Amino acid sequence: MRPLGPIPDGFAAIDGELAIDGRTAGSLVAEAGDTPLFVYSRTLVGERVARLRRAMPGRLAIHYAVKANPYGSLLEFMSGQVDGFDIASAGELAIVAAAGIDPARVSFAGPGKRDAELAAAITAGITINLESLAETHRALAIGERLGEPPRLAARVNPDFDLKGSGMKMGGGAKPFGVDAEKVPEVIRTVLASGAEWRGLHIFAGSQALDAAAIIETQAQALALAARLAEQVGAPLPACNLGGGFGIPYFPGDTDLDVESIGAALEDEFSSLPQVLVDTDFCIELGRWLVGPAGVYLTRIVDRKQSHGEVFLVTDGGLHHQLAASGNFGTVVRRNYPVAIASRFGAPVEEEASVVGCLCTPLDRLADKAGFPRAEVGDLVAVFCAGAYGATASPAQFLGQGPAREMLI
Amino acid sequence: MRPLGPIPDGFAAIDGELAIDGRTAGSLVAEAGDTPLFVYSRTLVGERVARLRRAMPGRLAIHYAVKANPYGSLLEFMSGQVDGFDIASAGELAIVAAAGIDPARVSFAGPGKRDAELAAAITAGITINLESLAETHRALAIGERLGEPPRLAARVNPDFDLKGSGMKMGGGAKPFGVDAEKVPEVIRTVLASGAEWRGLHIFAGSQALDAAAIIETQAQALALAARLAEQVGAPLPACNLGGGFGIPYFPGDTDLDVESIGAALEDEFSSLPQVLVDTDFCIELGRWLVGPAGVYLTRIVDRKQSHGEVFLVTDGGLHHQLAASGNFGTVVRRNYPVAIASRFGAPVEEEASVVGCLCTPLDRLADKAGFPRAEVGDLVAVFCAGAYGATASPAQFLGQGPAREMLI
Repeated sequence: MRPLGPIPDGFAAIDGELAIDGRTAGSLVAEAGDTPLFVYSRTLVGERVARLRRAMPGRLAIHYAVKANPYGSLLEFMSGQVDGFDIASAGELAIVAAAGIDPARVSFAGPGKRDAELAAAITAGITINLESLAETHRALAIGERLGEPPRLAARVNPDFDLKGSGMKMGGGAKPFGVDAEKVPEVIRTVLASGAEWRGLHIFAGSQALDAAAIIETQAQALALAARLAEQVGAPLPACNLGGGFGIPYFPGDTDLDVESIGAALEDEFSSLPQVLVDTDFCIELGRWLVGPAGVYLTRIVDRKQSHGEVFLVTDGGLHHQLAASGNFGTVVRRNYPVAIASRFGAPVEEEASVVGCLCTPLDRLADKAGFPRAEVGDLVAVFCAGAYGATASPAQFLGQGPAREMLI
Repeated sequence: MRPLGPIPDGFAAIDGELAIDGRTAGSLVAEAGDTPLFVYSRTLVGERVARLRRAMPGRLAIHYAVKANPYGSLLEFMSGQVDGFDIASAGELAIVAAAGIDPARVSFAGPGKRDAELAAAITAGITINLESLAETHRALAIGERLGEPPRLAARVNPDFDLKGSGMKMGGGAKPFGVDAEKVPEVIRTVLASGAEWRGLHIFAGSQALDAAAIIETQAQALALAARLAEQVGAPLPACNLGGGFGIPYFPGDTDLDVESIGAALEDEFSSLPQVLVDTDFCIELGRWLVGPAGVYLTRIVDRKQSHGEVFLVTDGGLHHQLAASGNFGTVVRRNYPVAIASRFGAPVEEEASVVGCLCTPLDRLADKAGFPRAEVGDLVAVFCAGAYGATASPAQFLGQGPAREMLI
């Protein structure tokens, strides 16, 4: 039997059924109309934001990376929870605008911004994180043409990486940001142009579970920010220290100690060099804020045995849960936290694989794991579905279309 | 420098620019309105169908697996090229209906068919490939309720696999089809019900480049079909021998020898057992028919150096080309065939990586490959983009949205 990932805190059983915020999976599906369904919980997101606020220095702003989950109702809720938003495209700009989020709270990072996207960002007044000197010149030229001085920050490809991170975004040759040694030229170009200088964005990696690694990376980011500001001889207005806060997905993964990270950052903030004393600092998190607050619910439409193995075939699959199927950024497939939602907490009775409805062997949500015996009609829950689920999966594959989504 | 996959036949340079069916990439992009753009060529698809017809026994029908590429205009064109269509969902049923394809030519396979999908299929009169005994009973009950006798075939989980295939769909415990030894019970249930019995569907794997492996698998499929028909004592009306015909994607891959496969199948057909002499045989191909006939065109929006490496940042990426980025069913990332379309055939001048516009290190279309020096504004072509491209990728990721598509 293969182990399942750890179910996040905050979920309970009511009459033997998974409950989210006190509401059973079955009643949520009934309200939404059908499976497959993503359920996101305001309460669980709010608790995470509150924990983070308690852990972090009061001076540190919290930004939300929209790419993690751009669901409209969730963004509207996040607007009252976090201080800023980071977007990655003109598409996400339209999404945050539709959610009524003030453009002054928004920054835009991404290595391949088209001219039209830069123009839309400048017109809206959002901060652009510049990814190259060439993009700097493009943004300035577009601002000139529009008669709008752009708000510009420089994204730094740092000369260090985030150790133990699921995805390294810095250290060595990278398509993201400007190599640290070339950043002063970008800063000087912006300062000389009359554009609004908005500081630095330093993002070294993502999905790290080791607090010590994040503490070290944040200290390195602060030192790098100070060095760059000193090189250009100007105090730094703002600095985005990136994110990298991971969540437990797989067997053996443990919760990130954000309290230690906050304490270490408080220490750093107490002894900042002169160029950083008035800097506005933020971190930018996506997955950590919303990932554990979402559950994907799908219904078993067939139960079959093949050569002695049990398969629970669901009406969902990798078209909504690409990462859970092991096909997105993972080399070795491991099981996410998955449970039979309509028999939640019931003892393990058999080994079964939960598969999706797609005609491909890649479509597996849980491989040879232990479950109570489930039947056709039972609901399956995939946890940690609040981030990089619906929009990070090929929804149109095999003509399936998107899942329903609801915020409770 | 890492090698690139082999560019399929049928592409030429006109004035130093990639041409598809005699039309330059730039003119196609201008006609479509913008990049990123999928271009599918009628001529190239037609040539592949013609080659296949020449190679295969006249008795063998050719079916198209819609999942490979469900683009509407392409389906309308395929309607005049192939004999049948295989769909995988009610969504694909709607797509083939919109393309004006006669339901009598359509079959429906998929391990997780919902009741509503079975009802839609029965009402439309398409053939359902049954994936379990439980699904057999569901389909018969729904047919009864609708007053429509369903057209039913049994999908077999064969007791052999397709050697060397990219994805094994048979052999051992699988969620697909009915284990061979349980198939007679499904057949007897259908025959006893008064439903229309449509035979067997035997699919052992996909993306194989070794003709000998496919020849062996087809022979095994024929032997299995005969054995099952003899066990139930009834001639077999139809038999879908599956597909598995691969195309070269990666360095070192070579073209599949379909002529040898056709000759071997001709031999098999000349000595069929009595239960198969009147059987309608087909193969079901997706990727092989349309994959090499499609090109994904994306424009370079930034050219940057980081720590000495060149990155060509495009306005496309893994949100349209998940498999080319190495994130769909591959363990070791290798380069697809990729070229600078606007400098097609020009000599290699530098090593560069082609990356997409998404803020993730996963978004890489070509890794450290040799290209002519390309600048901002140049077009990049990713070949073998005709199958499992647009719909097999997370189009909404980072707010990007789908690419344009055109059939020429």
